[in-house]
Amino acid sequence: MLSARRITEEARIQADEPASPVMRFGADAPLAMDAGVALAPWQIAYQTYGSLNAERSNAVLICHALTGDQHVANVHPVTGKPGWWETLIGPGKPIDTDRFFVICANVLGGCMGTTGPASTNPETGQAYGLDFPLVTIGDMVRAQAMLVDRLGIESLFAVVGGSMGGMQVLQWAATYPERVFAALPIATGARHSAQNIAFHEVGRQAVMADPDWRGGRYLDHGVRPHKGLAVARMGAHVTYLSESALHRKFGRRLQDRAAPTFSFDADFQIESYLRHQGISFVERFDANSYLYVTRAMDYFDLAAEHGGALAGAFRGARTRFCVISFTSDWLFPTSDSRAIVHALNAAAAPVSFVEIESDKGHDAFLLEEPGLFGTIRGFVEAAARARGIA
Amino acid sequence: MLSARRITEEARIQADEPASPVMRFGADAPLAMDAGVALAPWQIAYQTYGSLNAERSNAVLICHALTGDQHVANVHPVTGKPGWWETLIGPGKPIDTDRFFVICANVLGGCMGTTGPASTNPETGQAYGLDFPLVTIGDMVRAQAMLVDRLGIESLFAVVGGSMGGMQVLQWAATYPERVFAALPIATGARHSAQNIAFHEVGRQAVMADPDWRGGRYLDHGVRPHKGLAVARMGAHVTYLSESALHRKFGRRLQDRAAPTFSFDADFQIESYLRHQGISFVERFDANSYLYVTRAMDYFDLAAEHGGALAGAFRGARTRFCVISFTSDWLFPTSDSRAIVHALNAAAAPVSFVEIESDKGHDAFLLEEPGLFGTIRGFVEAAARARGIA
Repeated sequence: MLSARRITEEARIQADEPASPVMRFGADAPLAMDAGVALAPWQIAYQTYGSLNAERSNAVLICHALTGDQHVANVHPVTGKPGWWETLIGPGKPIDTDRFFVICANVLGGCMGTTGPASTNPETGQAYGLDFPLVTIGDMVRAQAMLVDRLGIESLFAVVGGSMGGMQVLQWAATYPERVFAALPIATGARHSAQNIAFHEVGRQAVMADPDWRGGRYLDHGVRPHKGLAVARMGAHVTYLSESALHRKFGRRLQDRAAPTFSFDADFQIESYLRHQGISFVERFDANSYLYVTRAMDYFDLAAEHGGALAGAFRGARTRFCVISFTSDWLFPTSDSRAIVHALNAAAAPVSFVEIESDKGHDAFLLEEPGLFGTIRGFVEAAARARGIA
Repeated sequence: MLSARRITEEARIQADEPASPVMRFGADAPLAMDAGVALAPWQIAYQTYGSLNAERSNAVLICHALTGDQHVANVHPVTGKPGWWETLIGPGKPIDTDRFFVICANVLGGCMGTTGPASTNPETGQAYGLDFPLVTIGDMVRAQAMLVDRLGIESLFAVVGGSMGGMQVLQWAATYPERVFAALPIATGARHSAQNIAFHEVGRQAVMADPDWRGGRYLDHGVRPHKGLAVARMGAHVTYLSESALHRKFGRRLQDRAAPTFSFDADFQIESYLRHQGISFVERFDANSYLYVTRAMDYFDLAAEHGGALAGAFRGARTRFCVISFTSDWLFPTSDSRAIVHALNAAAAPVSFVEIESDKGHDAFLLEEPGLFGTIRGFVEAAARARGIA
């Protein structure tokens, strides 16, 4: 059991002084947030891989999903596990760090070093908690653009991401069309569906139902709503998989025993798997960040920002798009990707669309699916040739 | 806020002295449970509608789903709402109480008068809590059979139920084939899938994470794990609907406002709908019963009871079956019903199978779907003719 002081200190260090480079923005460079707040000071934590070429034309921005972070291709400083897309990004890999300068930043509202609800509120010296303004996908992208500016990059070669990362890709292409040469939105949608909002709301209510949440001020009390956050993660995790993947992986197999225990122990393998997912998640993620980042996804509706017509978001875009979906993804089904492709076609943007056969559900985008990797490699290769990157 | 004494008293009255007829079984009539326990004394609460004919040939047993109860066709004594299948059952309705004697009993492990975890343990004078033995679908059906015996009915004209009710229908047909003339398993499966076990486990963990659960002994402390149970209900409720039903009913519409609040209030209509579902549920349902009844569904695997081959469960059956599924039900998809139909065909049982076009998801079985009601009316009519019921 950690002492109250240790819990607060560890969360604060992770939020304020992460094991990543940090770009700090002072009172002269506030972040204009959609909630109407000018956030200052603020900071963004990021990782880079490879080198920027002399033309500054080979930068690839990777956007992470709900519970991801900037550690996309290096060992994670908290969990000790490989980067979450290390199979895709690295020397000789589909996104080849021998050729490209890869950037990945923790999202605004996150808990791995970019300013969020666990960061210190300079006005109080305490964690922001719910005093942090609500965050949107637009805010996340605006923050990334300011980082990219500071890194001296005018135009990105590519912006790539899956799920919430894909929402950021779409937002990038809509807000900064001239700064995005190629865009790869994967397993995503241009707006969050009612069902997805519903699942997020259940997760948030699970966090808020935990008395250790303390109205969002848990860090002041040296506690964390671990139980509620674990329940939220367990529920979300089911939605990341497919029925057939769960059946293949676990079926109705019992955990280390021949017959059911006739108790509420984790009799079935799927139960102990989910409990493990819940427990390990809370060690690396802040509960308030979970509230903020799920809310950002719920609010996302790119067409609404453009008078209700999604094509309006991409009008005149010269960005080349590669839209990818997975057959068994029921969180962001292929119909969501098709809606993006239709809008891009209506906006006369160059787009290729691939629906990849996979039974692994939404999580397929994080896995080494040959169809996915081949598609990305081919698209990136052609785009690099078009941009004249050696 | 209710006092501790009131909470305990109300739960105890509902569990021990319900607003329904009750059949009591003493030490001479223990219930043999699959957990290896001979439960005694025990009781079963039930409602009946219509009259038993002189031949005792017109009895229809309705089996309720996870959170249903015996109040299938009368005003609910706790909520004041109509019976949960009052559209289907009544004078002149598809299950016509002018012709049939309809019985519906609260399941074993429930909280509306049939013995369950909120009932008084005679050994301690306190509620059973987790000292109540784990319950199976087989136990529920064995208890119903003892009720049917006491009512002087040798053979039921029909057994009808959806979801967990459909599991009981299948179990009845497998265990007491000579006592079931016709069987209607609706929106159900012969075993619970890994995904369904996963969703149930998340719900149970939400209940157990609530400190007011107190290891299952909350009634002794005059509290109830309302928050945890509400989260469980919210999560489950999403799985009862379809993506398209949610989209049609709620979409991304905001609740009583023109723009999002940039807060964690229920901005979207789907959020306030779910919160309402959670809050109203906890007023009528016991948290421990939720654990027990979900567990019973998880354990259900009719093929496993018969050497792994589902057809073995129905060998030699002369029961006539009508299996019904709904196109948008992703909790018990049509493939689950097909597996039942294949097994019935392999066992040479008479079976008709209808997949009903509906976008309302799993909950369609509770709604006045014309396709559903027409199918039931036709099947019941033909079966009644075959049995010579006037």
